[in-house]
Amino acid sequence: MIDIGIIGGSGYTGGELIRLLLQHPEARIRTVTSRRLADTPVTDVHRHLTGLIDLDFATPAPAEIASECEVVFTAVPHGAAMDIVPKLLAGGTRVIDLSADYRLPQQVFEDTYKRPHTDPRDGGAVFGLPELHGGIAEADLVANPGCYPTGAILSAAPLASEGSIEYAIFDSKSGVSGAGTDPSATSHYPNLAENVRAYNITAHRHLPEIVQELSRLDRSLNNIYFTPHVVPAIRGILTTAHLIMNRELDYDAVLGLYNEFYQGKPFVRVRDSIPDLSDVRGSNFCDIGIACGGRRVVVVSAIDNLVKGASGQAVQNMNLMFGLPETAGLLTPPLSP
Amino acid sequence: MIDIGIIGGSGYTGGELIRLLLQHPEARIRTVTSRRLADTPVTDVHRHLTGLIDLDFATPAPAEIASECEVVFTAVPHGAAMDIVPKLLAGGTRVIDLSADYRLPQQVFEDTYKRPHTDPRDGGAVFGLPELHGGIAEADLVANPGCYPTGAILSAAPLASEGSIEYAIFDSKSGVSGAGTDPSATSHYPNLAENVRAYNITAHRHLPEIVQELSRLDRSLNNIYFTPHVVPAIRGILTTAHLIMNRELDYDAVLGLYNEFYQGKPFVRVRDSIPDLSDVRGSNFCDIGIACGGRRVVVVSAIDNLVKGASGQAVQNMNLMFGLPETAGLLTPPLSP
Amino acid sequence: MIDIGIIGGSGYTGGELIRLLLQHPEARIRTVTSRRLADTPVTDVHRHLTGLIDLDFATPAPAEIASECEVVFTAVPHGAAMDIVPKLLAGGTRVIDLSADYRLPQQVFEDTYKRPHTDPRDGGAVFGLPELHGGIAEADLVANPGCYPTGAILSAAPLASEGSIEYAIFDSKSGVSGAGTDPSATSHYPNLAENVRAYNITAHRHLPEIVQELSRLDRSLNNIYFTPHVVPAIRGILTTAHLIMNRELDYDAVLGLYNEFYQGKPFVRVRDSIPDLSDVRGSNFCDIGIACGGRRVVVVSAIDNLVKGASGQAVQNMNLMFGLPETAGLLTPPLSP
Amino acid sequence: MIDIGIIGGSGYTGGELIRLLLQHPEARIRTVTSRRLADTPVTDVHRHLTGLIDLDFATPAPAEIASECEVVFTAVPHGAAMDIVPKLLAGGTRVIDLSADYRLPQQVFEDTYKRPHTDPRDGGAVFGLPELHGGIAEADLVANPGCYPTGAILSAAPLASEGSIEYAIFDSKSGVSGAGTDPSATSHYPNLAENVRAYNITAHRHLPEIVQELSRLDRSLNNIYFTPHVVPAIRGILTTAHLIMNRELDYDAVLGLYNEFYQGKPFVRVRDSIPDLSDVRGSNFCDIGIACGGRRVVVVSAIDNLVKGASGQAVQNMNLMFGLPETAGLLTPPLSP
Repeated sequence: MIDIGIIGGSGYTGGELIRLLLQHPEARIRTVTSRRLADTPVTDVHRHLTGLIDLDFATPAPAEIASECEVVFTAVPHGAAMDIVPKLLAGGTRVIDLSADYRLPQQVFEDTYKRPHTDPRDGGAVFGLPELHGGIAEADLVANPGCYPTGAILSAAPLASEGSIEYAIFDSKSGVSGAGTDPSATSHYPNLAENVRAYNITAHRHLPEIVQELSRLDRSLNNIYFTPHVVPAIRGILTTAHLIMNRELDYDAVLGLYNEFYQGKPFVRVRDSIPDLSDVRGSNFCDIGIACGGRRVVVVSAIDNLVKGASGQAVQNMNLMFGLPETAGLLTPPLSP
Repeated sequence: MIDIGIIGGSGYTGGELIRLLLQHPEARIRTVTSRRLADTPVTDVHRHLTGLIDLDFATPAPAEIASECEVVFTAVPHGAAMDIVPKLLAGGTRVIDLSADYRLPQQVFEDTYKRPHTDPRDGGAVFGLPELHGGIAEADLVANPGCYPTGAILSAAPLASEGSIEYAIFDSKSGVSGAGTDPSATSHYPNLAENVRAYNITAHRHLPEIVQELSRLDRSLNNIYFTPHVVPAIRGILTTAHLIMNRELDYDAVLGLYNEFYQGKPFVRVRDSIPDLSDVRGSNFCDIGIACGGRRVVVVSAIDNLVKGASGQAVQNMNLMFGLPETAGLLTPPLSP
Repeated sequence: MIDIGIIGGSGYTGGELIRLLLQHPEARIRTVTSRRLADTPVTDVHRHLTGLIDLDFATPAPAEIASECEVVFTAVPHGAAMDIVPKLLAGGTRVIDLSADYRLPQQVFEDTYKRPHTDPRDGGAVFGLPELHGGIAEADLVANPGCYPTGAILSAAPLASEGSIEYAIFDSKSGVSGAGTDPSATSHYPNLAENVRAYNITAHRHLPEIVQELSRLDRSLNNIYFTPHVVPAIRGILTTAHLIMNRELDYDAVLGLYNEFYQGKPFVRVRDSIPDLSDVRGSNFCDIGIACGGRRVVVVSAIDNLVKGASGQAVQNMNLMFGLPETAGLLTPPLSP
Repeated sequence: MIDIGIIGGSGYTGGELIRLLLQHPEARIRTVTSRRLADTPVTDVHRHLTGLIDLDFATPAPAEIASECEVVFTAVPHGAAMDIVPKLLAGGTRVIDLSADYRLPQQVFEDTYKRPHTDPRDGGAVFGLPELHGGIAEADLVANPGCYPTGAILSAAPLASEGSIEYAIFDSKSGVSGAGTDPSATSHYPNLAENVRAYNITAHRHLPEIVQELSRLDRSLNNIYFTPHVVPAIRGILTTAHLIMNRELDYDAVLGLYNEFYQGKPFVRVRDSIPDLSDVRGSNFCDIGIACGGRRVVVVSAIDNLVKGASGQAVQNMNLMFGLPETAGLLTPPLSP
């Protein structure tokens, strides 16, 4: 059994980590922290887990957590992780960070998040997208990718690796749970129901992650655009990748390329039809469908933003770090309808 | 043209008052107040009205508003109206108050809202439910009913007036706009979507209004219960009135009773089927349907909580106060689908 | 491992049976039938299960299924089960029937469903509500309860067993998946979104099941009423049980009664607050909350209609029939948000 | 008063025509046809209009309608209009056709809709997008544009007219009422709620309209792509136009261009922020917002698909054809929230 700590367990990603780890055959949750909710039962917040977990939120020091746990998930806001992570690593535990703090080189991070980075360790963290990155098994620190980047990168990676994309325009539609548990104008039901909202249209903070990863696959790919939308849904991100190619491509060829690229990747399901959010709800799958028309290839990817886009991918990384089957505890079927 | 002021114009009921009055042939909006938003355009908040109204939020003193306006709608929180209304009345204008401050006798108000009433004028305000109350035409102060009471009272009034109800149980399902424009846990999309929430199950503040009005019709009716729910909808209240009668009643007889009772009431549509919220969305109608089984009569009423349950009814009261046709400006068709 | 057949596997309850059994440590699905979809992959319909089950829909004769399977779930329409079930039983397998065919005495069934019963075996099937019925372990034929009855009966059973209910009015709010996979006016998005629909207001076919079970607990309880509504949700039934008692009851006493009654029942979670649908989504839990006011006790129960209201309860019955822990394969946490 | 006929009045666009014309100061609805519903009250289908219109569905011959009406709206399926329209025109009435039959040249129509055109009159109908086309006032036959084309064309027209677009990619998100009143898999609530569906990804039938109109403005613009999605909403289309320009453009310059282009067009509201669907719900407005980033300009347009995307635009065309103010009867404020 792996002893596990969750720092910042009161939000949606914290709740999902608990939900997934409760179903994991090798996981033992030792501590779940929340400064705000110290000493109250975890199930006061995560009511659905009543009867399934019997822990109170705790507030141990990082060193204490490190001594108890073989791996710690940090599910804290951007900017907070960089204070905690070095202490955890110093204490000898391994860390999977769900914040943005270790995904980008220092300069890019600082430009994007408008704050200094107090723990720059460029190259010291592995970008935790297992379908594209090796090195996770040996890593002490894994930077779990953002939700939008996960869906966008996986939708375009095979074609990017071929070097034939001229323009990549990612138009994403997300459920609102990505905005967190705090009520806001965005999540206010009368504002979101029966509505669609485009936001951060040309400059969302997840764009640099997408650029970083696709550029790794195709250094000449410069024209990468990303526009997110919120739709009336709790969970899920559907990304429509409009890829303008340097030549016309045949559907069968593209489908073959994707099937080959994702061969042996258990969580990417390349389909012969277009996926939708209910195909993956609650699960760690990323479903992909393809359409071709002229010089445009449209790839549609569907993920659950809280699972493959956050906590599920984090557990997938944990599996790799501890030499477990990549799918351990993660093959719970999606919930549909 | 009637010169009109709206005090507290930044919320949903304020926005609806403007929307409805813009379509009213005799209405001229002179001022819309908001302390918080002073000097910003009304359309910064009510974006949908862009191009249709060219006013900034103002903060005139009540005396000033009274001197300019023939009638003032007060759409402020409970407890705030009692500060403003006496000043308006003293200034010689007439007032339609959308808060709870003047709907109940002082003692009942204070018990229900847990605060002293600083402007008790028992009997000095008319309860503004035109289908049941005369005296609105002559009133200087009309207390516009609550949203739930409007739907509940209209659903049961004909049978109450016959004196044959033993138990009246109102189970209401409301859209969330009744909770206002401020984001809250209740209105947080992930909490409300795909959900139903019962709240204030035995002691909602609207219960005394329902009791007051039905008791007026049947002094022996003591067993009145009310349980509200929030459902995933922006607008509308569907009330299922479970009425246990002192004898079995025949459907045709009940339908006949309702048709007769609401004869000449233009906004109550007694139907031969069960209404739903889309039948009345955006409109001032209260649709009513009936089912009978044994000693239980079930009456279902549907209203738009922001229109017949608030601002539309307020305009209906205004029409009566100024000798206009009751339906002036209020026959805009519902929006369906 | 238990060899299992599913007859009628293309609908929502069929899909849920597969989803749940895939997570069950002792279940082996041998065959899933669908006449309409014979020889097509199960995952063509249940797309979310792609990669998790590798079976085609088959159309074996009942005798063949009976010879292969230790237990068969019949998830076919009302009226169809009574043709198949006797053949299965004759073949020596055990049957859990999810239709209404074996829940009621012959006469009540025929009056309710307006058709003759061709396989009456009054007393020959056990009503599969494990929290109230013994005898499931030994049964060859279990009649899995309806979705509404499950939530309604569990909400009122403890008070009914005390004999103090005068009137029981069940006002239920259901997601639309209970209406099945076939598009209809009821499930048409523009008809249901932003709406609430009351239907079969005094005479829903599930009422006789509720009456049957509560009358077993209190023979003097005659006044049982039930009104269902559809709300804009995919899954879940929230039942508001308005119980008029013969005396005032104290909250703590009622809570104590419920805790005691459901002691040792792992799927009923008696709460000290009011549950909502997200507390149980995707899970086999029935959450219950209580409020008291005067002579009315209001009990709110929340279930997932496809799980505790159908397929999950069926698996719970299977566990009991095969001497497994009641919770085997059924403690997957709910999906929230 | 203008005497008006509506052929095919039982669907959503028929209902919206009636709703809008009831509020029109110069409109008199003489007949509403439906073969299927002949002799039943219009309000049996359009329940929300109960009490507001007192007509039965009729089935007069086109010649009879033509003799009674000054203008006829044909709201029938594609392919059906071409049978009826010539008879109406021969009868001397004017026609506004809401189908696709007269929007495209014969060859393009036949290629797109896969059927022969039996009434080709290339050049004989005016494309009824008043913001771009003159000649409506004098036309006897107006081809009302499709819903998607209305939002897409208006979002890009100013920049197309400048000749600086290299690639135009329209990613549209639509409410499901565009699919009509008949229940289908697409409109089945469990399929659409909490979901987003991309469909006809590279070859939707509305693409040729978009190409036709934008090519008129910029003959060198060849790279026009369109992908529609259905989102969980009843009404509205939000179009995100990703426009790759031949050079970087400055936000203020683009905003200025749009303001100038739509100067004097009362239904296009160019905003300094991004619109969403609630800004226009129920109204004839097309709201437009702009964002610029590098060589990409993103224009977001929001319309109500049943109003500006269908029936409202048809009434706008009627106003122009009869010399009325363009806005007559069409300034009903949007319904928000």
